[in-house]
Amino acid sequence: MNYRAILHLQDSRYCYALDERTVRVMLRVSSEDRFEKVKIIYGNKYDYYLVQQSEEMIKSFSDSNYDYYTVTLALDDVRFVYIFQLEYKGKIYYFSEDGISEIYDYSLAYYNSFQLPYINRADILPVVPWFKNAVFYEIFIDRFFMGDSCKDKSYINLKWGDIPDPKSFAGGDLQGIIKKLDYLKNLGITAIYLTPIFKSISNHKYDISDYYEIDEHFGDKKIFKTLVEEAHARGIKIVLDAVFNHCSDRLPQFKDVVKNGKNSPYFNWFIIHGDKIENANYEYFGVCDYMPKLNTSDEGVQKFLIDIGLYWIKEFDIDGWRLDVSDEVSHNFWRHFREAVKGVKSSCIILGENWHDSYPYLHGDQFDGIMNYALTKACLDYFVKGIFSAEGFSKRLSELYVRNTEQVNEMMLNLLDSHDTHRFYTLAKKDKDKLICALALIYMHTGAPCIYYGTELPLEGGYDPDCRRCMDWSVDQTPTYISYILRELTRLRLREEIDGGTISFNSESGLFVLERRAKSRLRLIIHNGEGKKAFVPMGTLLLSHNFKDQSFCGTGFLIEEIKEESDG
Amino acid sequence: MNYRAILHLQDSRYCYALDERTVRVMLRVSSEDRFEKVKIIYGNKYDYYLVQQSEEMIKSFSDSNYDYYTVTLALDDVRFVYIFQLEYKGKIYYFSEDGISEIYDYSLAYYNSFQLPYINRADILPVVPWFKNAVFYEIFIDRFFMGDSCKDKSYINLKWGDIPDPKSFAGGDLQGIIKKLDYLKNLGITAIYLTPIFKSISNHKYDISDYYEIDEHFGDKKIFKTLVEEAHARGIKIVLDAVFNHCSDRLPQFKDVVKNGKNSPYFNWFIIHGDKIENANYEYFGVCDYMPKLNTSDEGVQKFLIDIGLYWIKEFDIDGWRLDVSDEVSHNFWRHFREAVKGVKSSCIILGENWHDSYPYLHGDQFDGIMNYALTKACLDYFVKGIFSAEGFSKRLSELYVRNTEQVNEMMLNLLDSHDTHRFYTLAKKDKDKLICALALIYMHTGAPCIYYGTELPLEGGYDPDCRRCMDWSVDQTPTYISYILRELTRLRLREEIDGGTISFNSESGLFVLERRAKSRLRLIIHNGEGKKAFVPMGTLLLSHNFKDQSFCGTGFLIEEIKEESDG
Repeated sequence: MNYRAILHLQDSRYCYALDERTVRVMLRVSSEDRFEKVKIIYGNKYDYYLVQQSEEMIKSFSDSNYDYYTVTLALDDVRFVYIFQLEYKGKIYYFSEDGISEIYDYSLAYYNSFQLPYINRADILPVVPWFKNAVFYEIFIDRFFMGDSCKDKSYINLKWGDIPDPKSFAGGDLQGIIKKLDYLKNLGITAIYLTPIFKSISNHKYDISDYYEIDEHFGDKKIFKTLVEEAHARGIKIVLDAVFNHCSDRLPQFKDVVKNGKNSPYFNWFIIHGDKIENANYEYFGVCDYMPKLNTSDEGVQKFLIDIGLYWIKEFDIDGWRLDVSDEVSHNFWRHFREAVKGVKSSCIILGENWHDSYPYLHGDQFDGIMNYALTKACLDYFVKGIFSAEGFSKRLSELYVRNTEQVNEMMLNLLDSHDTHRFYTLAKKDKDKLICALALIYMHTGAPCIYYGTELPLEGGYDPDCRRCMDWSVDQTPTYISYILRELTRLRLREEIDGGTISFNSESGLFVLERRAKSRLRLIIHNGEGKKAFVPMGTLLLSHNFKDQSFCGTGFLIEEIKEESDG
Repeated sequence: MNYRAILHLQDSRYCYALDERTVRVMLRVSSEDRFEKVKIIYGNKYDYYLVQQSEEMIKSFSDSNYDYYTVTLALDDVRFVYIFQLEYKGKIYYFSEDGISEIYDYSLAYYNSFQLPYINRADILPVVPWFKNAVFYEIFIDRFFMGDSCKDKSYINLKWGDIPDPKSFAGGDLQGIIKKLDYLKNLGITAIYLTPIFKSISNHKYDISDYYEIDEHFGDKKIFKTLVEEAHARGIKIVLDAVFNHCSDRLPQFKDVVKNGKNSPYFNWFIIHGDKIENANYEYFGVCDYMPKLNTSDEGVQKFLIDIGLYWIKEFDIDGWRLDVSDEVSHNFWRHFREAVKGVKSSCIILGENWHDSYPYLHGDQFDGIMNYALTKACLDYFVKGIFSAEGFSKRLSELYVRNTEQVNEMMLNLLDSHDTHRFYTLAKKDKDKLICALALIYMHTGAPCIYYGTELPLEGGYDPDCRRCMDWSVDQTPTYISYILRELTRLRLREEIDGGTISFNSESGLFVLERRAKSRLRLIIHNGEGKKAFVPMGTLLLSHNFKDQSFCGTGFLIEEIKEESDG
């Protein structure tokens, strides 16, 4: 037994509350070890030395190194303590805070059991109900659609449809989005993530000089209010982009510091190496000194940003904030931000832009979920680069899944691309089959899929600024095959049969299989092949692409339903 | 290579900031693997694909399963990303967020490097300066000393010196502590932890019915104010016991709920299974239904308790709170409590009563440190039970040490016993040598030692209530050998030579060795033997017990100093 590979972390993603009476517990072991049985032995902290209960754990996920055993327990007494019992080659082992042992003395458990010693309501992360089944659409506003034909167009320097450069302005605006809401509704979209809308001199507007004004290129507050109302009327949520890590050097508070140095009341709003600003001697975003970093440790900055966060919720009823460069902002600020935001609108989703394993932000005290770029990379590695076999891909998705609690997984924003990456379709060398299969995957995965505008055509695009091309509206009236698939995938996502169940990732004879099991079993089967025929057993066929008579032709997927009654 | 045993967790105890420019990073590997070299390869997130720096990591701790490599880096750019490079049997391996690989593509690092992407001041846990060198003394007030001879003594039912039962009252009070401050000062004590002082019908007063009043058995606010002032005048800090998990069923708010059920404004202050209180249908502490659990998820309860926390700091200038049953209280409450407390007195220490691995409370957003009961158990296992050899003990102490960040280790309260355990001396079958050696250990260990009242005599005592016997003042005028040793240990703790250095735990020829290395090297060497002679090399002898002519006689210790100049 590779006992050094065994891992459990109490009061963490390895043991957490689903609600005030239910805990989920996970144990990681080496995938090379075959355990006859894995059990949790648990009880109430105050009489555990006398009374223990036990429950078998199920191998729920496997990655390339580890198996993950899980169990969900409904507790009568939530003063929860536990150890693990492992059956290996006919012998019994115990795993406690003190490690692996052949005997375990329950009379000393108060020193070395594992524990989640009380479930307090305030520590449970609730799932935002609307998010679970949402389908997102990300809009880079300048390139989506120009709806206000009467505005001053003198700033526009890109002919619609031409290839953009970093300084291009094409004229897309909020009125344009309002005009396309029915189009989006028809595509099956239920939530829109907008890149920044606030005052800024750039086309992307990630350098904000006034967080209380809509940029005039995009519209005004009246138009934005209409957008939110019209979206809501269609059951579509609106999530804005909160650029709180940095601002524009045109922000009045920064200009005051440039002018007054240490005498400015805003001197501590920034991180300045010296007594006055000279030679870009302050912290800024990336390599861009026109975007000074905001000092989110500072109380004044925290209040400034939280007030902004609340203003757009209270005045415009937005449904969420996506947090730009959120991993460089202080945890302390995000805790305050969350409390304030959830205090005024608990259904407001908070999504970090964190590209890495982000558990430190996902305890329940900061974000609801993040942009799932790790899933993006896994999809590229499987569909595009061929680094993973179907088995490797299923293991990788398992590995990513166990990074987070179930609630966080339900609030992940799963995307194939964004304004910050190459377009998936372009990386896939315009292979529509691969794009369609990857879309099927993020639609069927736990969490909400996020479609980058134009994917439904599909639009092409390399790295920034090429991934920000103008939307091609010539196809507006003739829905594409991809948009048909997306609508159908939305329909399947909304089936209550998959709500609240479990997910698993596997492979069978070279096919990738994602299974969601709740009231019924929904299986997404993907063949990422080239010509080689693959055969699949079949339940009720719900949706398919490149699938005929129980076999795949090239790259394709099918989604089938297996009724439990007929499954034996 | 057992690559499945390799562990690193970013933005955690495995990678954290010591200050705004300094990070400490740790990597765990199997202790069976012999690496030729372990390096960190790090850089700035925004040009890491182009430029990397590297630094060798040092094997700093070893436990029975793992070796822990650490490195401390002073950063120019705090947008810190990194991977590890392992040299093993002549081959190079890389360890990133994606696991072990033989090649690493830095151009994809933004997807899979490790990172602590910015050091924000608000996320750094500062060490409370006075705590680092503090020596604590825990007083169970009813049994320490009766100073107020004029008070109403009708409640006293135990003759001083008789064996107590759970309902005994012996008459100890705050005036008694004031009268013994010089005694404590002379013992080398610099901080006192008092069990609860607030209104309660019990002798221990963990069932509080009024958090704003001093219990009349103990004195009044005027006397308490004098105690704090007189202690401060002697350089002694006062830490109080915050019983916030539960209260007495005599708390007016609970009585209101008993009377008015759901109509009480305090109904949600408790966790009640029903619409009114009947048949102990509410959550309570342990098996004691006279101590109803406070619902620390409730905003009203949070405000009530935080106001109490602040009142005693603002009005009486106390220096810290020890938090009773803190692991059953909500994280959310502790975050608010910390912000409020540190807001009014940043030097106020916050110490949880958590018996287990408590990293979830020790991120920097909740407690400073905890009562280190894991160290207590390790000492019992080594000195008393003989479960550990010197080598096993050093490995166990290493294992416990790496549970926490350096700052938390500096704020741990290290104790051999308390009002909640048997007395160490009694478990050690009255072996004074073992007690003295264990005391030497907790004095030389990082963190603050905490002496349970009477240890200096030493007082005997089994489990509660026997561990709460009356202090024997007949020895007051004749300092014991143990109190001599304690004074000398305090003197050594205060040497600036050991400040800010590193600690390591090792064994050499059956001797346990704790070494603190800063400006000089201080080594504590312990022989936990029975008669068998053990020889040690020697630096400058600073303090010793049962040590003669470079050899130990039975169980004993020595503390020596090795000047770096003469160490080669």
